[in-house]
Amino acid sequence: MSDRIWTAALVVIGDEILSGRTQDKNIAQLASWLNVQGIRLREVRVVPDVEEAIVEAVNPLRARNDYLFTTGGIGPTHDDITVDAIAKALGVPVVIHPEARAILADYYETRGGLTEARLRMARVPEGADLIPNRFSGAPGIRHGNIFIMAGVPHITAGMLDALTGSLEGGAPVLSTQIGCWVAESEIADLLAATERAHEGSQIGSYPFFREGRVGCNFVVRATSPHVLDACATDLSRGLDDAGWPPVPGGI
Amino acid sequence: MSDRIWTAALVVIGDEILSGRTQDKNIAQLASWLNVQGIRLREVRVVPDVEEAIVEAVNPLRARNDYLFTTGGIGPTHDDITVDAIAKALGVPVVIHPEARAILADYYETRGGLTEARLRMARVPEGADLIPNRFSGAPGIRHGNIFIMAGVPHITAGMLDALTGSLEGGAPVLSTQIGCWVAESEIADLLAATERAHEGSQIGSYPFFREGRVGCNFVVRATSPHVLDACATDLSRGLDDAGWPPVPGGI
Repeated sequence: MSDRIWTAALVVIGDEILSGRTQDKNIAQLASWLNVQGIRLREVRVVPDVEEAIVEAVNPLRARNDYLFTTGGIGPTHDDITVDAIAKALGVPVVIHPEARAILADYYETRGGLTEARLRMARVPEGADLIPNRFSGAPGIRHGNIFIMAGVPHITAGMLDALTGSLEGGAPVLSTQIGCWVAESEIADLLAATERAHEGSQIGSYPFFREGRVGCNFVVRATSPHVLDACATDLSRGLDDAGWPPVPGGI
Repeated sequence: MSDRIWTAALVVIGDEILSGRTQDKNIAQLASWLNVQGIRLREVRVVPDVEEAIVEAVNPLRARNDYLFTTGGIGPTHDDITVDAIAKALGVPVVIHPEARAILADYYETRGGLTEARLRMARVPEGADLIPNRFSGAPGIRHGNIFIMAGVPHITAGMLDALTGSLEGGAPVLSTQIGCWVAESEIADLLAATERAHEGSQIGSYPFFREGRVGCNFVVRATSPHVLDACATDLSRGLDDAGWPPVPGGI
């Protein structure tokens, strides 16, 4: 199995996220989907509906990651400028994609026809392919390593579903969780020592406070199942030896 | 009233967000809080628990915004490296803040004492002040225009509460919402024309699909109450004239 790590970045485009009106759901959704493909989400930027801000985010992120995803700004209205911004970032013109036009003409045939505003959703950076959208007609767009997706989470989900299995990735990150009724500051040294003892492992610590008691969930991550198992076993034993019984699977 | 626009950026620090384990809540929470202070959240980056990634995000964002907030990575464990990374970005050493040490010693007096791991939470970039934390002892940190906050949302909320009214801002962005049972592609031209006709206004369009019908909520934003009112009135009239009765307040 290759050790190559495949990475992705996400640019979330939308004033509605930055104004607090809408709670983003696409970061977590994309992250979970990428894990299954063996690709790690390495960085995310949230930018407003402003062309220069989109270009400034897209260019470095597409250069230093295997894949770049964007969400938002591909609808029919005046503030939907993602396609124009990405075409500018790539230095290519915006063109009407004939297949997208056909899909939209078909979708709107019984819904009032293909108006000029609706035709905006067939515009792509020259050289792009389409990503199917089974929910609302307007397709997503793929251009090289860039994937331009809808902002509405269930439509994004449908587009990701259409891409499942088509992106090359590496070994998925495996994880297992152990819970414990302990303050994380009690066992900080144990966590650090256990992680150091198992190369290729990572231990995340997620404290909580419930029903008057403090506790913590520990997520052990590794690409090798052997490393994962050895690290989790050691951590459980260490917690138990210190007088804090571990709860397999988490609390 | 000054026209100066005050801006902020946020760096969300945490592998748990990028792995999809945890759904971020701090972007929306900070954005809403900033609006009330008359400050606009202009950009967000989500970065892993990696020093260089934090430094690379912090330095440009603190330079081009009035305020920079960070969330996450200030706990007692080995992966809590935010303070070290920001000190590096600022080119200052990490020191123990005497008041933070006193707060922690007091908090842990009846909870097992101030261990070395717990003392980590008194470390600050040299020259910093503290942000009170009424929930769990360990304070947030302010250094110049940088605000270093907890990652756990209710603790972040307490720190924001402690900062309320202390940051200079400008005129808050006012907003009003109008709903309509219409496909956004039907009225895209109306939205663009109405926004153009009212300088200083912005109209966001948020489509939805409920109980078999498509609809849209339109959020009109402006800092001037007169511009807001005139733009919203025009939009409502335009929708009505086009045969789509507006629903004040949204659907």
